[in-house]
Amino acid sequence: MSIHFQIEARSGAARSGRLITPHGEIETPVFMPVGTLGSVKGVSQDILEELGVQILLGNTYHLYLRPGVEQVRNLGGLHRWMAWPRALLTDSGGFQVFSLTDLRKVTEEGVTFRSHLDGSSHFFSPERAMEAQIGLGADIIMAFDECTEYPADAGRMRASMELTLRWAERSKRHFEDHKQEVPWPKTHLAPDGPVRGSLHKPAHRVERSSAAFVAPASFLDSTQSLFGIVQGGMDRELRKQSAERTIAIGFPGYAIGGLSVGEPRALTREVVESTLEHLPSDQPRYLMGVGTPEEIVEYANLGIDMMDCVLPTRAARHGLLFTSEGKISIKQARYAGDEAPLDPNCGCRVCRRYPRAYLRHLYAANEVLAQVLNTVHNLSFYLDTMRAVRHSILLGKEAGSPCVRSRPKP
Amino acid sequence: MSIHFQIEARSGAARSGRLITPHGEIETPVFMPVGTLGSVKGVSQDILEELGVQILLGNTYHLYLRPGVEQVRNLGGLHRWMAWPRALLTDSGGFQVFSLTDLRKVTEEGVTFRSHLDGSSHFFSPERAMEAQIGLGADIIMAFDECTEYPADAGRMRASMELTLRWAERSKRHFEDHKQEVPWPKTHLAPDGPVRGSLHKPAHRVERSSAAFVAPASFLDSTQSLFGIVQGGMDRELRKQSAERTIAIGFPGYAIGGLSVGEPRALTREVVESTLEHLPSDQPRYLMGVGTPEEIVEYANLGIDMMDCVLPTRAARHGLLFTSEGKISIKQARYAGDEAPLDPNCGCRVCRRYPRAYLRHLYAANEVLAQVLNTVHNLSFYLDTMRAVRHSILLGKEAGSPCVRSRPKP
Repeated sequence: MSIHFQIEARSGAARSGRLITPHGEIETPVFMPVGTLGSVKGVSQDILEELGVQILLGNTYHLYLRPGVEQVRNLGGLHRWMAWPRALLTDSGGFQVFSLTDLRKVTEEGVTFRSHLDGSSHFFSPERAMEAQIGLGADIIMAFDECTEYPADAGRMRASMELTLRWAERSKRHFEDHKQEVPWPKTHLAPDGPVRGSLHKPAHRVERSSAAFVAPASFLDSTQSLFGIVQGGMDRELRKQSAERTIAIGFPGYAIGGLSVGEPRALTREVVESTLEHLPSDQPRYLMGVGTPEEIVEYANLGIDMMDCVLPTRAARHGLLFTSEGKISIKQARYAGDEAPLDPNCGCRVCRRYPRAYLRHLYAANEVLAQVLNTVHNLSFYLDTMRAVRHSILLGKEAGSPCVRSRPKP
Repeated sequence: MSIHFQIEARSGAARSGRLITPHGEIETPVFMPVGTLGSVKGVSQDILEELGVQILLGNTYHLYLRPGVEQVRNLGGLHRWMAWPRALLTDSGGFQVFSLTDLRKVTEEGVTFRSHLDGSSHFFSPERAMEAQIGLGADIIMAFDECTEYPADAGRMRASMELTLRWAERSKRHFEDHKQEVPWPKTHLAPDGPVRGSLHKPAHRVERSSAAFVAPASFLDSTQSLFGIVQGGMDRELRKQSAERTIAIGFPGYAIGGLSVGEPRALTREVVESTLEHLPSDQPRYLMGVGTPEEIVEYANLGIDMMDCVLPTRAARHGLLFTSEGKISIKQARYAGDEAPLDPNCGCRVCRRYPRAYLRHLYAANEVLAQVLNTVHNLSFYLDTMRAVRHSILLGKEAGSPCVRSRPKP
């Protein structure tokens, strides 16, 4: 057994549960921070643990280019290489390659693309993408898909969906044939003790963090889990077909891909909702690449279990901060003399300590600490939002707006 | 009373003691990390506390330009503004202005200089530098001096030294007339409880960190402390005169300035040694702007109590890491597959967790986390080095090379 999903509460279409992976349990619905190159930009892994991050996302395309799959494999996979004992997910590289509009060429076999770093030529196919993701060794990996552009006409949407289905079969076949090659050291998964997260002697922090999860005996010979991806553009009928035929291939979890590619938000919601009708209700459902704090609440209410997005981390780097009182652009001069915490309702280590005036100064002076602190706060806000959503579901209520808690009495 | 220095052990010329300030105790000899703009680049204040930093240095020139003294003063001074409850020291701006070779003009009255940011014209005098430093509100502030360039002829060295002496008198006069204007909130210095370091309600971390120091009742009306600076170029006789005449003006501590300006290291040491002979043995002695790990040990052995240098933080940003086994340039390809910790003898949160391969990747991929982790390690190495020096002095031994501890048995 390599993954186990158990739903513990439902409220309307929403559900809350646990996704158990070889590297730890994940409470769902979950927001997965993005660590493109094996790092959530500016934030150390111990701070991510403290924030309660249970699963991180890495980008196969980026890691394939730097440092290269071999280097990570030789160290025993991403967990050991980046010293992250908890769960990891990698995308397949399909979406990243899709973004290289002028640098790629798609054929039945796969995609030839040029590196955004040095223009060097590379080739990704379902087999190559599986090989890369097995070498990287995330707990959950994704089928190699073609992300259909928006807008696209009916013929293009269908052709693209069919290609993704053929690639899904090839992805699964290659994965099944090679999944034993995952480079996890066996000590990682020892059945009789905590998962070993650290490369070195047990250290205080790592011990503390990894002790929370003891891998069940059934995980001793565990491998990664490959999720399928539903495509089909913005067409309800194609989404239905894509879902049914992807399920027919058979995966332990299903993602909805091809959204957040420029379409209006109302359309995104419509496609998510209609696609969800056709996904198995007892398996994890992952909506790729969303969203704002309001959107992640909305999609969790629709029955999505997993989401990822660069928004909280990227916005932080541009000084855009999410708070219980709305969005703040910390660069504004009005904050220069403001001694209040960033968000008076937030308990993160940034809001507990620093006045807005200081955060504004750090941003205006281009200090690296601005990026660090802003990212910690935005991630904390997203994770608190999802925590509140899970709490609402457990109470049998639909979750409300993100993290608008009543202010403490003065 | 605003500062109290007590020597607790001596070994040869070296001494170990405590410098008690309105914002906490400092164990000496101490290395003071540099937080130019009110931030040790990339490192959050709570991590600095965890590293055991007891005093930080800020640069008046930089803070005067950004965010400006008014903004800091209005928030109650640097401690509250940057949420740092422990001790702070600011330089006078003299050295920074000295570095603006082509952008400054020195007269008897003071220095006219152009901002390195926007070319705007500014004027610093002893009075202006005191005004700025009182507004910033560090525990220890520095007289406005002229840092003599190297090399300089005898006439130039003497003229510069005489100017610094006249400026020291003016600095002291202005400070004595205005020291009550320091913007510290009185609650900062409450005699019946811990120093309040946080702007907000007591938060876990801040409480924990500041609880270590309870301000004595005598600190209730305390002010800042102004240190004098000895100049005199590389001339022993001028250094002697400068020391004697600065002492005659009278300060609670003395710095040796005008070194590390391009002269050979042997000459630095010679000047330090000869200047120390003329400084009071019962007052703190601060050597400005040094040095390497070897040098800070050497100067502590000569009897220096305080040092600061951008080397550990700046080198970190260039991937140069100090370890018990020598300097490491983490960018080198040889570390790409290296699963050992950066320094097997170091217990910092970076060495406890990450393999060199990952640190090398972060640096090569220009990830912000590289700067964060490298800085944490280098500071940890410097602070460990000084801790070992203090330990040696307490044991009555001369301190040896920095942090070369025996490796643990396998």
